[in-house]
Amino acid sequence: MEARFSFQFCHLLLLLLQSTLSNSVLAIPHKIPRLTPHRETLTRRDPNKNLSASAISDDFITLFYTQTIDHFNYGPQSYATFQQRYVINFKYWGGSNSPIFAYLGAEEQIDFDLQSIGFLSANARHFKALQVYIEHRYYGESIPFGTMEQAMNDMNTRGYFNSAQAIADYAQVLIHIKEKFSAQNSPIIVVGGSYGGMLASWFRLKYPHIALGALASSAPILYFDNITPQNGYYSIVTKVFKEASESCYETIRRSWSEIDKVAAQHKGLSILSKKFKTCAHLNSSAELKDYLVDVYAGAAQYNAPPDYPVTVVCRGIDGAPNETDILGRIFAGVVAYNKKSSCYETNGYKYPTETNVGWKWQTCSEMVMPLGTGINDTMFPPSPFNLDQFIKDCKSTYGVPPRPHWVTTNYGGHDIKLILRRFGSNIIFSNGLRDPYSSGGVLEDISQSIIAVSTVNGSHCLDVLVPDQSDPSWLIEQRNKEIEIIDGWIAKYYADLLI
Amino acid sequence: MEARFSFQFCHLLLLLLQSTLSNSVLAIPHKIPRLTPHRETLTRRDPNKNLSASAISDDFITLFYTQTIDHFNYGPQSYATFQQRYVINFKYWGGSNSPIFAYLGAEEQIDFDLQSIGFLSANARHFKALQVYIEHRYYGESIPFGTMEQAMNDMNTRGYFNSAQAIADYAQVLIHIKEKFSAQNSPIIVVGGSYGGMLASWFRLKYPHIALGALASSAPILYFDNITPQNGYYSIVTKVFKEASESCYETIRRSWSEIDKVAAQHKGLSILSKKFKTCAHLNSSAELKDYLVDVYAGAAQYNAPPDYPVTVVCRGIDGAPNETDILGRIFAGVVAYNKKSSCYETNGYKYPTETNVGWKWQTCSEMVMPLGTGINDTMFPPSPFNLDQFIKDCKSTYGVPPRPHWVTTNYGGHDIKLILRRFGSNIIFSNGLRDPYSSGGVLEDISQSIIAVSTVNGSHCLDVLVPDQSDPSWLIEQRNKEIEIIDGWIAKYYADLLI
Repeated sequence: MEARFSFQFCHLLLLLLQSTLSNSVLAIPHKIPRLTPHRETLTRRDPNKNLSASAISDDFITLFYTQTIDHFNYGPQSYATFQQRYVINFKYWGGSNSPIFAYLGAEEQIDFDLQSIGFLSANARHFKALQVYIEHRYYGESIPFGTMEQAMNDMNTRGYFNSAQAIADYAQVLIHIKEKFSAQNSPIIVVGGSYGGMLASWFRLKYPHIALGALASSAPILYFDNITPQNGYYSIVTKVFKEASESCYETIRRSWSEIDKVAAQHKGLSILSKKFKTCAHLNSSAELKDYLVDVYAGAAQYNAPPDYPVTVVCRGIDGAPNETDILGRIFAGVVAYNKKSSCYETNGYKYPTETNVGWKWQTCSEMVMPLGTGINDTMFPPSPFNLDQFIKDCKSTYGVPPRPHWVTTNYGGHDIKLILRRFGSNIIFSNGLRDPYSSGGVLEDISQSIIAVSTVNGSHCLDVLVPDQSDPSWLIEQRNKEIEIIDGWIAKYYADLLI
Repeated sequence: MEARFSFQFCHLLLLLLQSTLSNSVLAIPHKIPRLTPHRETLTRRDPNKNLSASAISDDFITLFYTQTIDHFNYGPQSYATFQQRYVINFKYWGGSNSPIFAYLGAEEQIDFDLQSIGFLSANARHFKALQVYIEHRYYGESIPFGTMEQAMNDMNTRGYFNSAQAIADYAQVLIHIKEKFSAQNSPIIVVGGSYGGMLASWFRLKYPHIALGALASSAPILYFDNITPQNGYYSIVTKVFKEASESCYETIRRSWSEIDKVAAQHKGLSILSKKFKTCAHLNSSAELKDYLVDVYAGAAQYNAPPDYPVTVVCRGIDGAPNETDILGRIFAGVVAYNKKSSCYETNGYKYPTETNVGWKWQTCSEMVMPLGTGINDTMFPPSPFNLDQFIKDCKSTYGVPPRPHWVTTNYGGHDIKLILRRFGSNIIFSNGLRDPYSSGGVLEDISQSIIAVSTVNGSHCLDVLVPDQSDPSWLIEQRNKEIEIIDGWIAKYYADLLI
């Protein structure tokens, strides 16, 4: 019998998906390394090392905006409000007319971004920019209708939790900030990564009168409605492993049937549990496979310098003693990646954190990204994305089906070069080509001011994270190119302002 | 005591406004001459005279699309659907890849547009275009939740009645049409007039991936949030009358205090009722003044060739026998304008038609256009728009306040030249400078492809109405310029398609 399992590698929405979507494949864009199991690969990016402590604590002021729950309805419920958190930093702001850089929050609380996102802090002085970080509705302290649990348990209250409402929130907050700080003529540059990068590019397209330009880092805006082949994501994971080590890639490719073989034995799950030192006894071989897919995808997505987690995993796999069998090598890769531990939490990414719960809803309503694999088109077993099944599963979980075509209806994506060649301006789509999500990104310039800035070796959202002294020159060059482009937008804006 | 009265000249939303907004001034953009009391000035544009009967009846096919009630919410109620009507005409369509011209319905049932809008029919052969006319939600046969009365009487069901939902409807219908008729690569040009013209320009800005370009006729997109001076509308009404006849203008200017003087007499209202041959006894002098404002504004807005109703009114006023007093002259103007009748219905525009009821809600929720007059800045008495009062009145009528800043938040408008100079493309803003609503229109080119096409002598929506053999050359030239511009968009699109 063919092995089937879920590829839920993306660490954030797994808990509920696990039970309902076991035959479908859904990966979510993360921008937030600190929320992932791969955070250790990014500890060197701890802002306390890179920014002065005061830059985090003293110069950042937390404020709240009374936000409308429903911007697109005039029924009485839509007038309900919630307190939306935003954080602001005046340290380098040149005052009236000087730019505002606004980081658009995504699927997590905004405090995390203050620590992991470096683009604003690192460049505020250069741009004389006011820094603004706005929390996405339904995360952190910006949850309408009480707690996250309360908001999400009610079919009616969670309906307002979507991207169109979120970017309308950002529009309102930014207009408010301009008024509050007498910055009517300040150009606003919006910045976001991953899902937040999508929001940034969509914000520029929908609200050009509010944002002058957008830096959309690792934004897979084309991973909807089958614009991107389903296997785009896993093909890149595969490619990154293969480039790191052909033998490592081969070992992984062969491991899945080995797992099935052992699982089919008498007490096979006990053998696997012992072999992989799982903290709890495995409930299924799929649990183990999910965990491993998770490790490989995460390592590839966050395959950042200087550690390059894919290299770390492969060093473990390839470096095991000669006599080690395939599963032993795979385990050695896990150990190398996760560091030595008394046991490994194969279920550990399935906790119902706010991000897990929130993003699971977002992907099951609007952000339907069809990720899957075919037969032998990646190093993973086949697991095609089945839209009908996905819809059915989401409907059974939430009572309403997703709207899988809405993202392209509302924001576009099909024939993007044809469409945006003569429409819009001032968007940077930045990608690292080793980021699996770059498969759904914009990788070619569309016009003179809708620009792709890619790095051959980059990983997910690398350009907008906190910079480090050890950053390779190609990363520094990518950032400098972005700064230069934004400088150009702002210079033109000021010139236009004087006309 | 200073005379105060409401300037509710715009015939469509008066019934409810009358009772609640008596101190505020609210004018609405009409595109639909046939719905106005000035329809007689346009009878020569009766399509039965200008288009063959078959072009209206046989070639137009009525279809319905199952539309989502709420595009921006994923709560269970938002999944309710309604049948949205659209009408389609294949007669001149060149098939796959040939253009689609879509008329975006506004504040009335779509059948009326089939009769009054000529731009699509007249040019379908030239463009080999599929003609599509889409009805606006909550009008005609596209009313969710049962009848208009049922939909509008419930605070919850009427909340979905707004422009953002309406243009999302159009997005869905147009995508559906492309799929249904295998027209994936057909460029879509959206066309609209007045409120529908606003929708057309906003549609191009928000859904550039669906519409290649927009012809926005007489779209006062700048008449929000005080971008346009309050008295813009009435200043143009005044100017048009003054240009037609200085003495006519003077008579009107002086008439208001005359009306007050008579009204203040014993049985003054009876005298006025008799003098103006009102069908019912006047309830107040304000009723008469409203009616007269309505006549003048309507005459100016629809001051179309060959009859030029302003000239007709002034001919009545100026042509009265020498001994005629001011109010006698005013009445002579009314008679000239409305033709001889046994009595005149001063309350006649206040019936709760679908358009009256619908547009009243739209202006009291979202489409808040601050129209007013100051002291001696028009030929009308002062009646400044008071936003606070307006909000209060709307809230008392509907239970929820309007959101007067939402239009500019969502669609822009402030600093439009600065914003759109380097963003967007392919919009024609057409205006007739004698149309009072042109005061809130875009009258200068913004970029190479966001173009203003104005005529010095034109009135409201003239370019998109059914053409007539007697049309003056400046009107023919305006239309030809529009056709030429659209030809250019389509040619570039086809060239891009081949790259």
